[in-house]
Amino acid sequence: MKINDPTVLAEVEAAFAEYEKALTTNDVATLDKLFKDSPHTLRYGVAENLYGYSEIAAFRSARSPVGVMRAIERTVITTYGDTTATANTMFRRDSMVGKVGRQSQTWIKFAEGWRVVSAHVSVIPE
Amino acid sequence: MKINDPTVLAEVEAAFAEYEKALTTNDVATLDKLFKDSPHTLRYGVAENLYGYSEIAAFRSARSPVGVMRAIERTVITTYGDTTATANTMFRRDSMVGKVGRQSQTWIKFAEGWRVVSAHVSVIPE
Repeated sequence: MKINDPTVLAEVEAAFAEYEKALTTNDVATLDKLFKDSPHTLRYGVAENLYGYSEIAAFRSARSPVGVMRAIERTVITTYGDTTATANTMFRRDSMVGKVGRQSQTWIKFAEGWRVVSAHVSVIPE
Repeated sequence: MKINDPTVLAEVEAAFAEYEKALTTNDVATLDKLFKDSPHTLRYGVAENLYGYSEIAAFRSARSPVGVMRAIERTVITTYGDTTATANTMFRRDSMVGKVGRQSQTWIKFAEGWRVVSAHVSVIPE
């Protein structure tokens, strides 16, 4: 299994960037698109545990668009073979004084493109 | 890509169970074995951000063996093809009153067997 094949890595980096832009502009349609529409898809958020695509989409549509901007750091994207990747990053928000966020995603390449199948976001004191 | 092929799923369930047993008995050798020995391996823990296998192994060896027992619930393991799986579970400890933990892992099957390449653990108020 090839790790970090440059072509595969470039694809996932583009998908990750698309997601980050959508998140920080509260582009719910793109956020929804980039999560796999499946009952298996799962997202543990900062304060919620969402099982299945429907719960995730409902959360997105109800989310406040205020204060979504953030700065990311120590981002690591790693690809395993042609259809699997992990993306991990830390992040900071002006509203999160003394705290740092962590975001983990597992991406799978389906016929429709790269999609997040599992995500976990949490915030901890520094 | 086949999702949740029964044979693949059984392999990952066995690996996940081995990890859970090792965690709740502080069997550091098994915990170390089940994480991929690679600089790409990453683990965001309850209070630490560990980049690379070496940082993870150092954390394991320094961890207190007290209070590691836990009960897991709403565990979901999903396999994608023959060599990728996600494992998500919530957990509770007697010491975590009013809080619930979440653990996310990405497993990849290498020549040496199934290994965790990315993990994220966090605890939030209920």
